[in-house]
Amino acid sequence: MDTQPRRFDKELDELKKKLIHMAALAETMIDKTVSELVRRDEQLARKVPEYEEELNRLQMEIDEEAMRLLATRQPVASDLRFIVAATKINGDLERIGDLAINITENVHILAGQPPLKPLIDIPRMADLARKMVRESLEAFVGDDALLAQSVIMTDDQVDALKDQILRELLTYMMADPRTIERGLALILVSRHLERIADHATNIAEDVIYMIQGRDVRHPRTPKERPPDLDV
Amino acid sequence: MDTQPRRFDKELDELKKKLIHMAALAETMIDKTVSELVRRDEQLARKVPEYEEELNRLQMEIDEEAMRLLATRQPVASDLRFIVAATKINGDLERIGDLAINITENVHILAGQPPLKPLIDIPRMADLARKMVRESLEAFVGDDALLAQSVIMTDDQVDALKDQILRELLTYMMADPRTIERGLALILVSRHLERIADHATNIAEDVIYMIQGRDVRHPRTPKERPPDLDV
Repeated sequence: MDTQPRRFDKELDELKKKLIHMAALAETMIDKTVSELVRRDEQLARKVPEYEEELNRLQMEIDEEAMRLLATRQPVASDLRFIVAATKINGDLERIGDLAINITENVHILAGQPPLKPLIDIPRMADLARKMVRESLEAFVGDDALLAQSVIMTDDQVDALKDQILRELLTYMMADPRTIERGLALILVSRHLERIADHATNIAEDVIYMIQGRDVRHPRTPKERPPDLDV
Repeated sequence: MDTQPRRFDKELDELKKKLIHMAALAETMIDKTVSELVRRDEQLARKVPEYEEELNRLQMEIDEEAMRLLATRQPVASDLRFIVAATKINGDLERIGDLAINITENVHILAGQPPLKPLIDIPRMADLARKMVRESLEAFVGDDALLAQSVIMTDDQVDALKDQILRELLTYMMADPRTIERGLALILVSRHLERIADHATNIAEDVIYMIQGRDVRHPRTPKERPPDLDV
């Protein structure tokens, strides 16, 4: 076991870099699938399954490395919280990749049929979701609780768009049953985007817990709050 | 710091018990919401939001306790893998609770309207999802990799039911536009159940990793597999 603290810092940096790489891949996957949907060009999302394999590989590497660091470095305080956060964020990023793959499946259904309507809200939702993924990771590497908080707040906008998309597409589907299949595929795309935003929100919550040792997931009244953990 | 190993065993047992309690709550939530849907009796799911609060509380307790154990006991080998698994399983169970709440919302929409059709596949899917949740936790506390493997295999049945439900409801919706809103609500219920089964699958994968120190999430060819970690 290496006792040099600088070597440990390097190992933590390496974990950080891998997580940022995962987030960049996830963001690219969302961008490519939704661009394919909007521009109706199947070439755009061609590489998405390759990116997913890369995400899966990185997830396993990060988990293995985190376990090794926990066992050999026996970290405490903020280093411990950082490593546990990494194993959780990791899982969220991998599932964002799975969701991008799910979107691709619906996009393929839509590609074979005439466009239902010009798409405005879905690309807007995708942009918000991508921004949330990017910023949640920026908050993680920059120890930025304020940025993490703003990610959590953006989730409300995503939910509002999701409801709006549902209402609008229901109107189309009821007016013309020939649009039902396409309408449903678009609704499912919007649900996958909503879940991506949920994962970014989870990441942001983990970041705040990591920085402040404070749980923001389920606010309690002050009386019920146990004293902050300072491990 | 207490150096008695028996005290540490007790602490690990305590974590186990809390996770089993979370799984039982999650299972009850799925049962109550789907029973409300099938029997059209709003009383059945009345307590579901209370169960969710209890789930949230347990999630935070388990995370805090896991961090404390990692910091003060500096566990290695299987104890370390157990505690890291607990922090992940924890998050899956909490999200299963969120999904049960999402189902409740669709059930409320359906309650105000005449039944679309007798429901067969959705309760079947709910039974499978509940069984997966229960068995994934049984595999966790019983160190049972075979049971975890069978949970993972059940996920294919859930996916098949999901596709069947979609096809059947699309037929209804296209034949009679007055059924579109109800059909869509039922499709979304089936999607939430599918996600619950996905979380149970994630738990089962974490259990296998915990027991065998082997990653089953994204199988690689033997050549690519790194040697098993024995931390």
